[in-house]
Amino acid sequence: MPDPLRLGIAGLGTVGAGIVRIIQSHAALIAARTGRPVQIAAVSARTRSKNRDVDLSAYGWEEDPVALARRTDVDLFIEVIGGAEGPARDATLAALAAGKDVVTANKAMLALHGQSLAETAEAAGRVIRFEAAVAGGIPVIKALTEGLAGNRITRVLGVMNGTCNYILTRMESAGLPYDTVFEEARALGYLEADPRLDVGGIDAGHKLSLLAAIAFGTRVNFDAVELEGIERVSIDDIRLAGDMGYRIKLLGVAQMTGRGLEQRMTPCLVPADSPLGQLVGGTNMVVLEGDAVGQIVLRGAGAGSGPTASAVMADVIDIARGIRLPTFGQPATSLAAAPPARVAAAAPFYLRMTLLDKPGALAKVATVLGDAGVSIDRMRQYGHAESAAPVLIVTHKTTRDAINHAISGFAATGVVVGDPVAIRIESV
Amino acid sequence: MPDPLRLGIAGLGTVGAGIVRIIQSHAALIAARTGRPVQIAAVSARTRSKNRDVDLSAYGWEEDPVALARRTDVDLFIEVIGGAEGPARDATLAALAAGKDVVTANKAMLALHGQSLAETAEAAGRVIRFEAAVAGGIPVIKALTEGLAGNRITRVLGVMNGTCNYILTRMESAGLPYDTVFEEARALGYLEADPRLDVGGIDAGHKLSLLAAIAFGTRVNFDAVELEGIERVSIDDIRLAGDMGYRIKLLGVAQMTGRGLEQRMTPCLVPADSPLGQLVGGTNMVVLEGDAVGQIVLRGAGAGSGPTASAVMADVIDIARGIRLPTFGQPATSLAAAPPARVAAAAPFYLRMTLLDKPGALAKVATVLGDAGVSIDRMRQYGHAESAAPVLIVTHKTTRDAINHAISGFAATGVVVGDPVAIRIESV
Repeated sequence: MPDPLRLGIAGLGTVGAGIVRIIQSHAALIAARTGRPVQIAAVSARTRSKNRDVDLSAYGWEEDPVALARRTDVDLFIEVIGGAEGPARDATLAALAAGKDVVTANKAMLALHGQSLAETAEAAGRVIRFEAAVAGGIPVIKALTEGLAGNRITRVLGVMNGTCNYILTRMESAGLPYDTVFEEARALGYLEADPRLDVGGIDAGHKLSLLAAIAFGTRVNFDAVELEGIERVSIDDIRLAGDMGYRIKLLGVAQMTGRGLEQRMTPCLVPADSPLGQLVGGTNMVVLEGDAVGQIVLRGAGAGSGPTASAVMADVIDIARGIRLPTFGQPATSLAAAPPARVAAAAPFYLRMTLLDKPGALAKVATVLGDAGVSIDRMRQYGHAESAAPVLIVTHKTTRDAINHAISGFAATGVVVGDPVAIRIESV
Repeated sequence: MPDPLRLGIAGLGTVGAGIVRIIQSHAALIAARTGRPVQIAAVSARTRSKNRDVDLSAYGWEEDPVALARRTDVDLFIEVIGGAEGPARDATLAALAAGKDVVTANKAMLALHGQSLAETAEAAGRVIRFEAAVAGGIPVIKALTEGLAGNRITRVLGVMNGTCNYILTRMESAGLPYDTVFEEARALGYLEADPRLDVGGIDAGHKLSLLAAIAFGTRVNFDAVELEGIERVSIDDIRLAGDMGYRIKLLGVAQMTGRGLEQRMTPCLVPADSPLGQLVGGTNMVVLEGDAVGQIVLRGAGAGSGPTASAVMADVIDIARGIRLPTFGQPATSLAAAPPARVAAAAPFYLRMTLLDKPGALAKVATVLGDAGVSIDRMRQYGHAESAAPVLIVTHKTTRDAINHAISGFAATGVVVGDPVAIRIESV
């Protein structure tokens, strides 16, 4: 049997401990699959004394992940510290400089520094793999980079933040407003220390930017992701969208258009009976569309110790098996700097507004929409006790600009009460 | 740029032509992803003159696939002829003997001869890859062999024959009996020349046996798959199962148990609101369950020119990139000969019977069930105009043996009309 692959694991939180557990329980299984023992040489974390429910006594210990990355008994450096800057990045660079491959779960670091890290790794003949950074246990990086490599990818979309999906589906099932469910999620420990990473769509946007780079052969460009969180999604919109046959999801969409690369992570309506519409709770789903394969849907746990450690181990086992691919599927220096699409592709929109109960109110609104070039597919006016009525409109395909133009025109009608809500409907 | 990878494509049916189309339209894309040109050197088929809507004039031509497999200008042999024996197998063996790697879409050949082919390939230092053989465009072989390689796989299940799923969902949506929809499917060209391959579950059983070999590190053993087709699924059962919250699917299940390896491809009930229950039409779905990752669901087109060619190209691109794994994920000589489980794991069952409208009829049936050790979870008796009433029972977990024992006991009650139907309910 060949020499063992010796791992250094930096970070012993829930993911790091999960990796240790897999290696300890599945040593024979992994050796049978790789033809090579996979061993832990040393680990690092901030606090040695913390109880992590795994036996670390056989491994070397470093307080400094950079020192771990430089150890001569480490072949492969596993970074599960987290954070775009600081120790995670320092240690990753130190590992590459010391001639080691890197496996990381760090979406933020790769979304912000992926291009330079990939170039550094490839210049040194090392690999950086990051299956665990996107959609937890779902092997989506592998599916996209390898499984669909014969396709021109036409669109990548999905629900990539389980906490947001939990909040939205809990709002629907319990009929509770956003703020209440947000506090529940916080109490359950579902939220990042900075909750904007979750509910602001930043974490999911990081993931989308990584998928887009692989899908379209472009430099990862997180800054170009159109980001909108779920903070303003109301229980009224969840109910009324449901009444029209839709569910609201924090949906990531990346597609290459004639106007450039479009990347969006925003609340969207999807058909309630579609796989994305049916996704409830903290599960993730990624949909990959290719010109030959059509639509592939992948579903699984997007977070948690076991699923994330499973994804890290897939990368470790790839490397143990001698599978060595460029970080984004093709050499980093060959990735194109795609111009961001400044206008999203046209789509139907959901429009909710409150109209004064006056003769001709609906006609006035319809006229404004028509003047803005927005045509109406379906409309519902709901029964009401007050002097104003909720009205829902599903438009034909149009642009956000046209919708905004119409909304700004509503003010002059004198019949629209408060601010209308407009949400894009994504066809899936 | 390194030397091109030169392909020989044997078989120019819908899949072969799809492969040619991808290579012709995506040459630059594939070279960017692999770092190496991928070219067609020569092709073979039975008839040269047939119009296949692709330009083959630049390629060498062989009538005999064995001659193609031996050509010195071919590095990688692609077998998309089909059939477990004959030209497909002869040419595959010839290619391996001539030192070439093989990519195949041939589930029958691998299900029946996979072990010996893998041993032959590995002894010669060549690889056989077969992503296209299971679930068409879904990269499930890769997900299982590589993406979940850090897991002990606990269960693999899925809908792996699109034609059967089309027939079952069409029966439900149109309220038509099996025979009518079978003839429709035949007229639409959805059925194999020998329809038993589809509706008898053989084709799907082949696929399941391949997944089981990878999942559990065992020798492929198609003969041990418990096979039951969809020919006896009635529209009554589809309706009544629906009424109890289930759908009937031709479901493949493989799991390692204390009693050996269980492989089944049989009609089962699944919850109507589960991903498998919601799968309609010709789409495939494979569910992979691992001890770390939990449940991963993969969904996509299970057949067709583009999706199948996409899967073939994933294997071709892997080989162009230097990814070389044993056929079943670990060396063929290390695969275990797992004893087949002779009794399937316990499960709830759906029981449908017709009872004479006599006092005490239900009590008699319940007594027989109790005596057989079968306990009742839910029961429904339906309104009826005749002298006999349809009765549905969902049991608690039990075995097929206990169910059969009870059914044979029903005869003595004198109240059960005709043959009861029993269908396993798989938890998903």
